[in-house]
Amino acid sequence: MIKLYSYFRSSASFRVRIALNLKGLPFETAPVHLLKGGGEQFAPGFKLLNPAALVPVMVDGGETLSQSLAIIEYLEELYPSPPLLPQGASARARVRAIALSIACEIHPLNNLRVLGYLSKTLGVSDDEKNAWYRYWVETGLAAVEAQLADDPRSGAFCHGDAATLADICLVPQIFNAQRFNCELGHVPTVMGIFRRCLDLPAFADAVPAKQPDAA
Amino acid sequence: MIKLYSYFRSSASFRVRIALNLKGLPFETAPVHLLKGGGEQFAPGFKLLNPAALVPVMVDGGETLSQSLAIIEYLEELYPSPPLLPQGASARARVRAIALSIACEIHPLNNLRVLGYLSKTLGVSDDEKNAWYRYWVETGLAAVEAQLADDPRSGAFCHGDAATLADICLVPQIFNAQRFNCELGHVPTVMGIFRRCLDLPAFADAVPAKQPDAA
Repeated sequence: MIKLYSYFRSSASFRVRIALNLKGLPFETAPVHLLKGGGEQFAPGFKLLNPAALVPVMVDGGETLSQSLAIIEYLEELYPSPPLLPQGASARARVRAIALSIACEIHPLNNLRVLGYLSKTLGVSDDEKNAWYRYWVETGLAAVEAQLADDPRSGAFCHGDAATLADICLVPQIFNAQRFNCELGHVPTVMGIFRRCLDLPAFADAVPAKQPDAA
Repeated sequence: MIKLYSYFRSSASFRVRIALNLKGLPFETAPVHLLKGGGEQFAPGFKLLNPAALVPVMVDGGETLSQSLAIIEYLEELYPSPPLLPQGASARARVRAIALSIACEIHPLNNLRVLGYLSKTLGVSDDEKNAWYRYWVETGLAAVEAQLADDPRSGAFCHGDAATLADICLVPQIFNAQRFNCELGHVPTVMGIFRRCLDLPAFADAVPAKQPDAA
């Protein structure tokens, strides 16, 4: 069975959980607590699996894979049904661009180690740190909203009426946004898609609170 | 002809230039100066092409595409030769993971708007800002070095003996690292690959100094 080294609140882990659920692939969760004991991701055993000391890591048979989007593309290649990318190079590029707008422009600025650097090394106050968090989420989601709202290819989901890689990245980012009380009134298209995603068990079962390592 | 909206120093633009050169696809550069006049990427005309106000944007016939990795996957699908991803889902996942280790873990922390926020909003000194830059580059490249150095799948390039998406992301990141005087002695495998890439015209012709908008 597929084994997923995961942290319940990690949005990159959350993405892979959704993808596995959408593909109907059962998996076993191996929890890696990112805060406990200075971070279990830095333990020598885990760094053998991923020298970058990041979750998620997915073990599928003899393969050990890291980086959530690389893992999801791998799943798409080996388990193509249901597809997480649409047909056609242009449509696929649009879905990947939306996914990367979240994975490269928003999420990296808000992960634990970056917030830790702001506090510990730069001595930034909690208020300033939260303002940083909200700034990148709100600005980044405004860009995603603009990509979605004026494009006839958007549908019930980011691209048409089936969930894709773009929705898989969007939903965990909104969970983070809500946890940090970000303003979301300016992204109505995003929020409509978010709610429709959570009507699907594949998304609802992947949320942090439902994971075995949830606090 | 393909039109690439690009800034000579943008490493995301640099990636697409390398990919186009490797594929042997001629393209016309439309310069977008990220600093001049408050940033040409915020001009209304450019935001019609990309609401996220980021370079690169590639226009190929009727298609307008953004996000460098989505653009490169699109090129790979439409112009498969020479391939920028290896054969086999596992090998492809490895190449994508190395690329994403740079595109998601290093580069987003060091782009212009993030450095601007540190200076202008958080009032961080130039020394602290440069230390931030170097910290993420040096830590991130150490993780890439670990992924490469102990893996028999590494070769003259990140994966085997032909350039892939991983090398396309690696080379621009090293250019940035050198510009900010980052320590690179701890990443000898990375630097060997970097030098071998620059022996190829596809990489050498894509460097910032050779672009029409170079200062």
